Amino acid sequence: MITGEKMHKWAADLFNINRSITGPGVRETLVFLSNLIKGLQIKSVASGTKVFDWTVPDEWEIREAFIEDKYGNRIVDFKNNNLHIVGYSVAVDQYMELDELQKYLHSLPEQSDAIPYVTSYYSKSWGFCLTHNQRESLESGKYRVYIDSTISPGVLNYGELIIPGDSKEEVLLSTYICHPSMANNELSGPVVTAALSQWLLSLKKRRYTYRIIFIPETIGSITYLSKNLDYMKENVIAGFVITCIGDNRTYSFLPSRKGGTLADRAALHCLKNSVKKFNEYSYLDRGSDERQYCSPGVDLPVCSIMRSKYDTYPEYHTSLDNLSFISPEGLKGGYDILKKTIRIIEVNDYYKNIFYCEPQLGKRGLYPNLSIKGGSADDLKNLMNLLAYADGEIDLIDLANIINVDIIDLHPIVEKLIDSELIEKVC
Amino acid sequence: MITGEKMHKWAADLFNINRSITGPGVRETLVFLSNLIKGLQIKSVASGTKVFDWTVPDEWEIREAFIEDKYGNRIVDFKNNNLHIVGYSVAVDQYMELDELQKYLHSLPEQSDAIPYVTSYYSKSWGFCLTHNQRESLESGKYRVYIDSTISPGVLNYGELIIPGDSKEEVLLSTYICHPSMANNELSGPVVTAALSQWLLSLKKRRYTYRIIFIPETIGSITYLSKNLDYMKENVIAGFVITCIGDNRTYSFLPSRKGGTLADRAALHCLKNSVKKFNEYSYLDRGSDERQYCSPGVDLPVCSIMRSKYDTYPEYHTSLDNLSFISPEGLKGGYDILKKTIRIIEVNDYYKNIFYCEPQLGKRGLYPNLSIKGGSADDLKNLMNLLAYADGEIDLIDLANIINVDIIDLHPIVEKLIDSELIEKVC
Amino acid sequence: MITGEKMHKWAADLFNINRSITGPGVRETLVFLSNLIKGLQIKSVASGTKVFDWTVPDEWEIREAFIEDKYGNRIVDFKNNNLHIVGYSVAVDQYMELDELQKYLHSLPEQSDAIPYVTSYYSKSWGFCLTHNQRESLESGKYRVYIDSTISPGVLNYGELIIPGDSKEEVLLSTYICHPSMANNELSGPVVTAALSQWLLSLKKRRYTYRIIFIPETIGSITYLSKNLDYMKENVIAGFVITCIGDNRTYSFLPSRKGGTLADRAALHCLKNSVKKFNEYSYLDRGSDERQYCSPGVDLPVCSIMRSKYDTYPEYHTSLDNLSFISPEGLKGGYDILKKTIRIIEVNDYYKNIFYCEPQLGKRGLYPNLSIKGGSADDLKNLMNLLAYADGEIDLIDLANIINVDIIDLHPIVEKLIDSELIEKVC
Repeated sequence: MITGEKMHKWAADLFNINRSITGPGVRETLVFLSNLIKGLQIKSVASGTKVFDWTVPDEWEIREAFIEDKYGNRIVDFKNNNLHIVGYSVAVDQYMELDELQKYLHSLPEQSDAIPYVTSYYSKSWGFCLTHNQRESLESGKYRVYIDSTISPGVLNYGELIIPGDSKEEVLLSTYICHPSMANNELSGPVVTAALSQWLLSLKKRRYTYRIIFIPETIGSITYLSKNLDYMKENVIAGFVITCIGDNRTYSFLPSRKGGTLADRAALHCLKNSVKKFNEYSYLDRGSDERQYCSPGVDLPVCSIMRSKYDTYPEYHTSLDNLSFISPEGLKGGYDILKKTIRIIEVNDYYKNIFYCEPQLGKRGLYPNLSIKGGSADDLKNLMNLLAYADGEIDLIDLANIINVDIIDLHPIVEKLIDSELIEKVC
Repeated sequence: MITGEKMHKWAADLFNINRSITGPGVRETLVFLSNLIKGLQIKSVASGTKVFDWTVPDEWEIREAFIEDKYGNRIVDFKNNNLHIVGYSVAVDQYMELDELQKYLHSLPEQSDAIPYVTSYYSKSWGFCLTHNQRESLESGKYRVYIDSTISPGVLNYGELIIPGDSKEEVLLSTYICHPSMANNELSGPVVTAALSQWLLSLKKRRYTYRIIFIPETIGSITYLSKNLDYMKENVIAGFVITCIGDNRTYSFLPSRKGGTLADRAALHCLKNSVKKFNEYSYLDRGSDERQYCSPGVDLPVCSIMRSKYDTYPEYHTSLDNLSFISPEGLKGGYDILKKTIRIIEVNDYYKNIFYCEPQLGKRGLYPNLSIKGGSADDLKNLMNLLAYADGEIDLIDLANIINVDIIDLHPIVEKLIDSELIEKVC
Repeated sequence: MITGEKMHKWAADLFNINRSITGPGVRETLVFLSNLIKGLQIKSVASGTKVFDWTVPDEWEIREAFIEDKYGNRIVDFKNNNLHIVGYSVAVDQYMELDELQKYLHSLPEQSDAIPYVTSYYSKSWGFCLTHNQRESLESGKYRVYIDSTISPGVLNYGELIIPGDSKEEVLLSTYICHPSMANNELSGPVVTAALSQWLLSLKKRRYTYRIIFIPETIGSITYLSKNLDYMKENVIAGFVITCIGDNRTYSFLPSRKGGTLADRAALHCLKNSVKKFNEYSYLDRGSDERQYCSPGVDLPVCSIMRSKYDTYPEYHTSLDNLSFISPEGLKGGYDILKKTIRIIEVNDYYKNIFYCEPQLGKRGLYPNLSIKGGSADDLKNLMNLLAYADGEIDLIDLANIINVDIIDLHPIVEKLIDSELIEKVC
């Protein structure tokens, strides 16, 4: 049984691992996930591999990092919070005056108690991040900066799970595992995806094949696409980037580039019928791996359902995006919406009437014998409307949208009408 | 000359006949109509005939029906109002206590002075309908229930009139003749259709052929389609279900399933240019024979223009839908709108300019010689706009919609431009 | 350097010439323009030439025209204002009572200090125009009316300039030269078009060929089309009627008949990104030569950008539409908008990404090395959005509309991305 508490616990277990786009933190995370998800493969691609316009970078490993003041106090220490170090910082061991040190410090004046999240993946550099309050309190004098890290050839890792279905057509679930200690914009993604994987694996039967990947953002999706693009273009019928799915402030939808794909339609149908309100963003507001999946020429049908969208909530990309920003309820709500969206895709189909005109429902016990003024029951109204629109030219999502009903409520009626030999699936 | 008074008189003459989906009341009604409409054929289909998923039912004949109280008073009597009996009631002659009797009574607590209209066509049963006030006043004690009726093999009847036109393409007018004493939701339909038939028969020339049918609702249209579907699919270019067209509260429009057919466009153009406001319903609000005509696979271009739509006004399907609910003005207004809609279809065509650029209207006396500031007359503006848009790619309805003019006002201008050899019809 | 003052001066120089659809005034105007515009050809078509449904009219020449009162005062004199005479007035020399004279007078009761503009091109007639105030003050008595004019075979003149570009595809600029002393609705058109011609001639390189014509309205465009229609239909990709472009009250847009052509899209993109608000008219509000260019069968992609649109401002077609109604700022604003619209057409193209997925911008110096929370610069955002949408299927105007940026700001980014070999033009 998937619970919000279980997912929150996984997030807590993963919280302190120092993830980046490569390195031991990613591997540790993937090992943890592979213990949750039967069959998850940990794959690796060597540094230096060309992937479209990019090159897989060297691995970054960091062992220790701190700033020491003139009294020998470690005033900033990577051990306390892995956001303190700029991602991909090179090694350094130096003394410097405060003025010089300031050039290597990052803080947020307008969020003075938050440590920002900063990276410099593709340019050799180093730096420390701290709260603006602490930075303001620094006294002049000499400081020691110490970083024990290496950047050297290795691999880029990712996790991949293919769960076969009746069809080789695929639904893609993509989430990322490259951010250090942040909860909504990172861990909510992998833990909800892990939960969805467990649910999908538990099913006796799946109509579609599921391709589930845990990758570093941007370079990971680019690398993955460079290896799988042709196959995916042929087989992926819907996909979702799973991120920022753990708080309980709101729901958000970010469409694919052109919108209107099966993924978009299923997600919108789900949100409209399941939550009171949600924010509908434009592809102009994109910011995660749909940037690659929906890029011109790639054009996979990929969108996102989120709770508070990245780059819109104040805690984003700071130490305030922590385990108390997400919640068991938030994670469970996000999980439920994604699960329902997947179910919508699984049940979506084209149906058409077998008979011309309305069938005689009464003789099949589907219609009251006595006709008297007054509204029909909702189920009967939905059944009549389904028959009135089932022309084999619109799929069940569009049909449900026209007749204003949740497709998940409509599906049992579809099955009843198939059993009664009144409608049939259109191939 | 068609007048509202004449139509109201016809309705009054037909009011007390006990119509149902089969039986002598239908035949009596059709005979009355055939005296009004030269050439109306009365057709019959045998009980037991398979029509798509349905079977033509046995005929129902009822001679007498009453409830007698312990004092021998006939407190409910079919003779007084044929709504007192549930349609297709089987024969019964029994004494029963009030408690038992209640199971066979139907009334409307929220409309306590109305007798409801109830039927049980396809399941052997019986019952009485009465006002809720009367029902509340019933004293305990023994009652006698008596129904002298038979349900036995016979025929289903309908009326059919084909008025030939220059083209074998057809306009369908369909109305129903299966409700007992109710005025708007029944008799307004046949009497307005009778008046339209008289008008169409009086025309020297018709562009289209008119197929006009008087049928029992649902089983009648299904039966009719089962005999004529292929021919109608090939030839019907527009059709209208004519019902609820006799009160003077409002106008209503109910589209075909997908909308946008010639029938829909003509009806909407007519209503928008003829009445101040009207209710535009969705196909989700359907409820009459468009349910068959627009069903998947049948897909005839059929919509409805009504006054107060069935199932939206309180008097619907009760004894309050009587001759004072409809009016001569209401019937005439409905007749006029339908007649105008038919005229729109008759005059609708594709036209294109004969000359490149604007023609020189002045030399033909179509334009003032003196050019001075100030608005042109409406007719000149319409003529100029017609020439500006007549590209042979849009029909006159669309053109009139673009230039915001009633097509009936535009038509004389079309004829003037044809006479002037400035535009021509596009085949 | 084009300035508003220069254009206003040209208008002032042209103001007192008595233009009509033919005659010496048109020629004098064309000679003046040909001194401004290198290469402008003055063409002529003989009276009597058949042009589609029309015939080129005889030339009108007028030497003198006045009304004299009983005291010998010339109370209305063509010498003072050439609007005093009805265009194409025939010769007359007569004495008549005021009552009789009134039949030949035109004034505007609701604009009592304005002389109206009246013509009677195609029907032999004569008349005088005066302010309503003056007309009201006329005393009874005998008046002498004197017009010394001739209408006789001659030519219809127009100016034509073809500025070749890299492509034989053409942009059409059309303006008219047939109104006597009026400023916004006439002279703003030719002077702004003259300025645009100078600018286009000054360019080292033009992508498109420019066809620039100065014609009498209606009969001129009909005549011009009758000679050039086939070639223009094949080659004109966008065109603009240039008129009413000199006041500074507002901006206006009038679309082509069906809208959505390159000309419409460029003009709308320009206006939306350049001015705070503008009036968007319908083709139903048309009134100038688009009536011919967009007529059915001609169907050239021609629209209009104006300032106060003809027939909407009170001074229109009166002596109040004078040199103080237009202004240097008004003319310059109109010129700038048309110039920018032409530049939009010149830079518009289809582009697509060279790489799958986002390219690595950092290694090309196009992206900051350090990733930290906070908005990107607008230029970077535009660059990323351009790459995200450049799929070779939408042109730059549509792309700029989607990403909400002025195409003129986007163009340098396009060039940077071409230089960086990240996008390429689609042929």
